[in-house]
Amino acid sequence: MTTDEENLAVAAHRRCSVLLRRWLSETHTPVRGGPLRLPLGPIRLHAEVEYVSPTGAHRFGPIRVVDAEDRPLAIAEPGLLSAALSAEARARAVADATINAADAGSLVDWALRSTGERDAELDPVGAGVRESTLHEQLREGAWTPPRILESVTDGAEAERWLSKHVETELLPRLCALESPGEEATASLLSSGVLAAIGVLGRCGVADERDLLAVLSAQLDAFTDSHPELDPLLRSWLTGPTVTDVAVVNGSSLRYRSRSGEIRPDPVLHEIANPLRPFNAASPRVPGVPLPELGEGWSLRPVELTGDDGGPDAALVHEWMNTEHVAVNWNQAWSREEWHTELATQLGGSHSLPCIVSLDGRRIAYVELYRVERDKLAGCYPRHPRDLGVHIAIGDDAVIGRGLGSSLLLAVARGLLEADPECPRVVAEPNVHNAASIAAFAKAGYTREREVGLPTKNSALMVHPR
Amino acid sequence: MTTDEENLAVAAHRRCSVLLRRWLSETHTPVRGGPLRLPLGPIRLHAEVEYVSPTGAHRFGPIRVVDAEDRPLAIAEPGLLSAALSAEARARAVADATINAADAGSLVDWALRSTGERDAELDPVGAGVRESTLHEQLREGAWTPPRILESVTDGAEAERWLSKHVETELLPRLCALESPGEEATASLLSSGVLAAIGVLGRCGVADERDLLAVLSAQLDAFTDSHPELDPLLRSWLTGPTVTDVAVVNGSSLRYRSRSGEIRPDPVLHEIANPLRPFNAASPRVPGVPLPELGEGWSLRPVELTGDDGGPDAALVHEWMNTEHVAVNWNQAWSREEWHTELATQLGGSHSLPCIVSLDGRRIAYVELYRVERDKLAGCYPRHPRDLGVHIAIGDDAVIGRGLGSSLLLAVARGLLEADPECPRVVAEPNVHNAASIAAFAKAGYTREREVGLPTKNSALMVHPR
Repeated sequence: MTTDEENLAVAAHRRCSVLLRRWLSETHTPVRGGPLRLPLGPIRLHAEVEYVSPTGAHRFGPIRVVDAEDRPLAIAEPGLLSAALSAEARARAVADATINAADAGSLVDWALRSTGERDAELDPVGAGVRESTLHEQLREGAWTPPRILESVTDGAEAERWLSKHVETELLPRLCALESPGEEATASLLSSGVLAAIGVLGRCGVADERDLLAVLSAQLDAFTDSHPELDPLLRSWLTGPTVTDVAVVNGSSLRYRSRSGEIRPDPVLHEIANPLRPFNAASPRVPGVPLPELGEGWSLRPVELTGDDGGPDAALVHEWMNTEHVAVNWNQAWSREEWHTELATQLGGSHSLPCIVSLDGRRIAYVELYRVERDKLAGCYPRHPRDLGVHIAIGDDAVIGRGLGSSLLLAVARGLLEADPECPRVVAEPNVHNAASIAAFAKAGYTREREVGLPTKNSALMVHPR
Repeated sequence: MTTDEENLAVAAHRRCSVLLRRWLSETHTPVRGGPLRLPLGPIRLHAEVEYVSPTGAHRFGPIRVVDAEDRPLAIAEPGLLSAALSAEARARAVADATINAADAGSLVDWALRSTGERDAELDPVGAGVRESTLHEQLREGAWTPPRILESVTDGAEAERWLSKHVETELLPRLCALESPGEEATASLLSSGVLAAIGVLGRCGVADERDLLAVLSAQLDAFTDSHPELDPLLRSWLTGPTVTDVAVVNGSSLRYRSRSGEIRPDPVLHEIANPLRPFNAASPRVPGVPLPELGEGWSLRPVELTGDDGGPDAALVHEWMNTEHVAVNWNQAWSREEWHTELATQLGGSHSLPCIVSLDGRRIAYVELYRVERDKLAGCYPRHPRDLGVHIAIGDDAVIGRGLGSSLLLAVARGLLEADPECPRVVAEPNVHNAASIAAFAKAGYTREREVGLPTKNSALMVHPR
């Protein structure tokens, strides 16, 4: 290979990295160092995670398409990866979502358009690593991203640079805002200073946690002198999520702008707030309370007995392996696996597995959980005492008689009564599970938004107090 | 780069080559050795043509996306190239063509599907190089494509192999056909034995022309003993085009099959017949005759006078630079360039440039040409005496008064009268030029098919005798 071709291969890798970072952020997929396996529509991706970033600016080693045995089939290329991500995003969304419209375009259009764009333009969609936006945001300052990396070469310099930038650029801009809200969060925080911190971390110049600590101390000090900015700054510092700009996924996303120009059309979504660990003391959230349901319903925690878990474990295993449950829960595991799973849940404070009976007949399996300790925690602006519910009506003889929504209502009422500080009960059925969404709606749960999870897009259903 | 990654890069290059070969064949783009530049929708492609194949099995060196100054921007990757080709094919086709339907899918689906398919499966769409079909066609024989290349290592061996294959495989299959026609041509000839010849040529084992000579001699000898196959074999040997199977372009192409499966759905199209040079003596076609039009019309060849071409050259240059002509002809050249162009045409026997007047007023520029000597020659099963016409009504004061179709009818009648052996007069307006197509239709030209040309898709309009 010539040097030219090596440079082109590096550029292709960068463009793939942008897409992959974005996808992981938007599907709220947990990222750890080492190998990452991801089914993406018709292909299977395998990437080496070389650097895990608190702001989402992860760095990847080789990214490849592999077969079922992890054998490499192709180097991941931006065009192909765009196509796979578009296909997967479309399959996750409902049929009448804008992303599935005939003229919606796709990320492939982005890949075509961005071919040949260099440096800053190459990274227009990274979560917290949007160097181009960073460039725009901060162009009045004496530097652009490459220039940061020229003038800042170690952690101490990075902290000094950040501190000065916040003082002379970020805070004055913040004060000049007319309506400080989600858009300001997206442009000044997520795609602005957090993006810069992510770039410095990814390039090995500084430890992101040190920079996040500097930033949060400065923002915190500023709230005293500017009470009018307090609500916004408090949400930046302690909110469970911050607003980002989505360009890969989501049913409300158009890939083709109204003027007909082909480009990703940003929509707002939520990502976990990397400043929160430095500011919000880990909330002391009690375990899941046991609700009383009334009206003939009874609910009790699963009981495990004997070496094999006993009758409750057997029943849950049986239900999970029936077709109508397996298709939604995707947990048609073995008896042993379910025994282990139930024991783990019962031993922790995250989730409480229960058997529900109606007039003495056991008909459903329910998991009650604290959102704060669940994967949903990073997906929406939760309250620490939010409670969540998963439900499986195992006894298929009772399906279709409206018992599901009756049970869901009883559970919401019971939970809100059992924990007076809990402001809402939530659930996250797959956007394609119309029956489940309808049952929640009938039980008084409101569909608030769509959230991306590692394996599905979910409708966030909320039953307020 | 590891060996693994080098192998993957080679596989990606092969998949790009398949797509590029197919596109060149289907747009009837002439291929020469050396650098090839191709605008493809939103990108510009630059490829080194390392081997020019009579059967269309060209071999390419580096294939890159470049900027306007030919600087490399990206290595061409199958996903991106598929997207660019799909975009270009869609832009060339009319809005209601099947390829533009909401559910039509695209070559990107092919790229996704074929990721990781190996060897034979990698090359399902090459013009005359469809190794997978070759494999299917010839699987009863003792070899598959890789095995040909194992057992055949020079030209003499290749000729012996081919001769035996024709005798023991191709001819028996031909005799077993119930309805020998286009499909047989596509499967047995284009994608069968011509594909094998292309592979042998591309791999440097044999000279394709030697193998084509062997094949044509055998087919020719066979016609005597099988008169029932004579029409098919004659068309194989001497027809100006042979049928191939289109999978990239064309308005009647669906990229998604009716069963919902994503795959290219083949449609038949025509490519230049590589056997013809060995069998059809170059027809002695006279130059373009000068038609008499009548009904107030007069037509005369352009007259060049003086150093700058004189008044006719000035008028053609002026017309070609008016907006309504330039948008369709795309030849808004300088006066000098037009002078040279007209002199070249007048000095050859391909095309005759003429000025048309109506009742003494000069209103149009017309080029009359022999299809046999034109780029259209390889696009449809022409007759050697076919004549073609290009028309530009330069005087925009007369546009929209139906004079165009009146002139086109007069030209067709005049040409058919001037050359009694000419069976038809043809034209090839851009499929997007509805006004021109309507004028031809009104003048008695029938829309026969769509043909791909290097820069546009054209409606082939035919006025029969």
